[in-house]
Amino acid sequence: MQKEFLEVKSLYRESEKYLGKKVRVAGWIRTSRISKSFGFIELNDGSFFKNLQIVIDENKISNFSEISKLAISSAILVEGELLSVDNPKNPIEVHATNIIVEGESDSSYPLQKKKHTFEYLRTIAHLRPRSNTFSAVFRVRSVVAYAIHKFFQERNFVYAHTPIITGSDAEGAGEMFRITTLDMTNPPLNEDGSIDYSQDFFGKEANLTVSGQLNGEIMALAFRNIYTFGPTFRAENSYTARHASEFWMVEPEITFADLEDNMELAEDLIKYIINYVLEHCPEEMAFFNNFIDKGLLDRLDNIINSNFIRITYTEAIDLLIKSGYKFEYPVEWGCDLQTEHERYITEQIYKAPVFVTDYPKDIKAFYMRMNEDGKTVRAMDLLVPGVGEIIGGSQREERYDVLLNKIKEMDLKEEDYWWYLELRKFGTATHSGFGLGFERIIMYLTGVSNIRDVIPFPRTPKNAEF
Amino acid sequence: MQKEFLEVKSLYRESEKYLGKKVRVAGWIRTSRISKSFGFIELNDGSFFKNLQIVIDENKISNFSEISKLAISSAILVEGELLSVDNPKNPIEVHATNIIVEGESDSSYPLQKKKHTFEYLRTIAHLRPRSNTFSAVFRVRSVVAYAIHKFFQERNFVYAHTPIITGSDAEGAGEMFRITTLDMTNPPLNEDGSIDYSQDFFGKEANLTVSGQLNGEIMALAFRNIYTFGPTFRAENSYTARHASEFWMVEPEITFADLEDNMELAEDLIKYIINYVLEHCPEEMAFFNNFIDKGLLDRLDNIINSNFIRITYTEAIDLLIKSGYKFEYPVEWGCDLQTEHERYITEQIYKAPVFVTDYPKDIKAFYMRMNEDGKTVRAMDLLVPGVGEIIGGSQREERYDVLLNKIKEMDLKEEDYWWYLELRKFGTATHSGFGLGFERIIMYLTGVSNIRDVIPFPRTPKNAEF
Repeated sequence: MQKEFLEVKSLYRESEKYLGKKVRVAGWIRTSRISKSFGFIELNDGSFFKNLQIVIDENKISNFSEISKLAISSAILVEGELLSVDNPKNPIEVHATNIIVEGESDSSYPLQKKKHTFEYLRTIAHLRPRSNTFSAVFRVRSVVAYAIHKFFQERNFVYAHTPIITGSDAEGAGEMFRITTLDMTNPPLNEDGSIDYSQDFFGKEANLTVSGQLNGEIMALAFRNIYTFGPTFRAENSYTARHASEFWMVEPEITFADLEDNMELAEDLIKYIINYVLEHCPEEMAFFNNFIDKGLLDRLDNIINSNFIRITYTEAIDLLIKSGYKFEYPVEWGCDLQTEHERYITEQIYKAPVFVTDYPKDIKAFYMRMNEDGKTVRAMDLLVPGVGEIIGGSQREERYDVLLNKIKEMDLKEEDYWWYLELRKFGTATHSGFGLGFERIIMYLTGVSNIRDVIPFPRTPKNAEF
Repeated sequence: MQKEFLEVKSLYRESEKYLGKKVRVAGWIRTSRISKSFGFIELNDGSFFKNLQIVIDENKISNFSEISKLAISSAILVEGELLSVDNPKNPIEVHATNIIVEGESDSSYPLQKKKHTFEYLRTIAHLRPRSNTFSAVFRVRSVVAYAIHKFFQERNFVYAHTPIITGSDAEGAGEMFRITTLDMTNPPLNEDGSIDYSQDFFGKEANLTVSGQLNGEIMALAFRNIYTFGPTFRAENSYTARHASEFWMVEPEITFADLEDNMELAEDLIKYIINYVLEHCPEEMAFFNNFIDKGLLDRLDNIINSNFIRITYTEAIDLLIKSGYKFEYPVEWGCDLQTEHERYITEQIYKAPVFVTDYPKDIKAFYMRMNEDGKTVRAMDLLVPGVGEIIGGSQREERYDVLLNKIKEMDLKEEDYWWYLELRKFGTATHSGFGLGFERIIMYLTGVSNIRDVIPFPRTPKNAEF
């Protein structure tokens, strides 16, 4: 039956093809204005951001009275003639000749026309995708996900599924969720009273992954260029607008490639995504610019047309100190950059995206490549106006001895990294990679400021509803 | 630096562009045959299934002796002239003029030329992507994942990220993994001695998802057509070659669409995937056909060129009984179809893919749409030669009252399904969907018979290494 019903998107995009003809559409009533014998229904069929106006006339449809009483969100099947209207915002409408009620709604439908808070809408996550804002956000989410795949596949990168369940807590990027099938009221114990995980499902402790990077390196050292795109997890009790317990990450890893290649890839990716979403979601992006974040399109335009700046951490610290600006967190060489510092660099000093590279080794992860100076590592963070850090990456330490020393120096367990070390033994190669938080880029592209509003069914502390 | 090194794939695919010119490549030594003053290195750079032959000559490179001693899997940077050779299997080779050692390997490298068992290769999952078989499998995996996205996005489906962590065990599709941050040696207890999950991270019991379907229905009833593509989990202690604890699922859900639409979509998807992989991975597919499964390409060709058969469960049972064939599990109306029955239908009776529809309600899930006969539901399974069931789906029960009765009848808790029921209250609509196990289709496309060998880092009972 679905093919009988044209997508509203097709009616808008290829209206010449259908004007003056009989068409059938199926969708949900978003709003209606109906008088005694005549009225307008705004129909949304989910295929397109915009509604289609349905004109109903008691002389043309037999069940006018029934239709005129339908509650918001009722599903209807409409047959009628597609006509053009002299209205640039709504250039087409359907004059109904037959309407069948597919599924009624009623007056208790929670998404009435009045404006609801985003907080409230989170409590009806099963209905909020039917609102303008969330239909726009989740469609953009889908289109951006595809843009990311397309970008990498066009460049011959291999998409690698790294494991969600991990038997090591070797990644060290954050607090982890334990996975178990043990009876928690009566778990098997070792002699010392600790849990005997050898009897658990995987025969040892298992957790949800915080990053696919280490596994990604395995794949990159076989396939040259790879990317991961999958869910990652943080068991942190953080209630900020920027943190969720479950989120998706994109992690490319490239071989025979140094930090310069890595920065170039990150810049290309960001620009590709922005161009793609502007081209494929013009209605949604205009909506965000009008109703969520007034400066959005200008800001994105600025990014596309900027050459991303590249400075070292040491230069960044100098610039921040010289600025004379009074930061909440004082600036000195060796400190981690706070969001206020990052934003000052990208918004005030450069007014453009900025790569900051070569951070002090003590504030970065063990796997980043040590520089000649013995003090800094080949790290990179990409800072963008409006957000601060949006990408973090590095050239990886490819030298077996240097990596082993680093692991020992940081009191990590060598045996946890046996395979990671072996990659450096059997044909190691210069390689680099970075991580892009998928929700971060969606927030950036939509202007939506809370991560809970860019994930269809967000997971945060004390919340796993739906 | 990466741009200096052409991909081996480009050298093969666009050889006219580079023949007679100086080129640089970077990769790993797969094998070599070297005599005192002259030799051949088979170089693989990960960008392409095939190796590139490098000719080395002591009169042309200064470090011939060093290069000639390199162990398998050493990484090298090669400069030389690309020349054509009169060999249809290997029509190009590079005559090296300069070789730099990027990363040495040594003789303890486990992937020597001799043939290893797949069992052994699983123990070196950090190196097996460098073997012919696994480089082919994991590249096909990547290409098929992209084909799936492309198929749906071209049809204007919205890609929906459904949650991995679920607060309900309402899906009922299998055993689940518990997620917790409680101290398992000393968990908080309720008065009755049970675990007090209100103190756990999410404020209640949380598990890993077994299916995104119910959330997918939310999205489909907003966007018309959606698909999920993400990891799902089964905590089953099953050691078969077809089951893993962590695997990826594709679950489209379509609205204003009945079971006929659903079958058409499934048929189109399967054919699209096969055509896509044959077009984009001809070298890999030829390899599988030669070395893994001799009849593979014929079998896939047969699928592309078949019209998929559609029969009801009742017809299938009749055919099986009439066949007179002695099955291990006897056949009668009401029994679930076993793999032996499924394969008999698709391989012996039809020699083509077969949709079996309208199964007895008692052997199918609560959400499938009840037929008028009161005995069967609008389910469908797609059976294919060589495997049996590869897709399972249904038209969903869209009638509020019928669904509620079914939930009560099956002793499910109504309150667990409040939002699922509400979808039937606020503009319900005919809708349908199915699930395709991603690993199942990869196994089908490659001929690889163990699911552990189509997942880069498989998770199975007692195994979460890497």
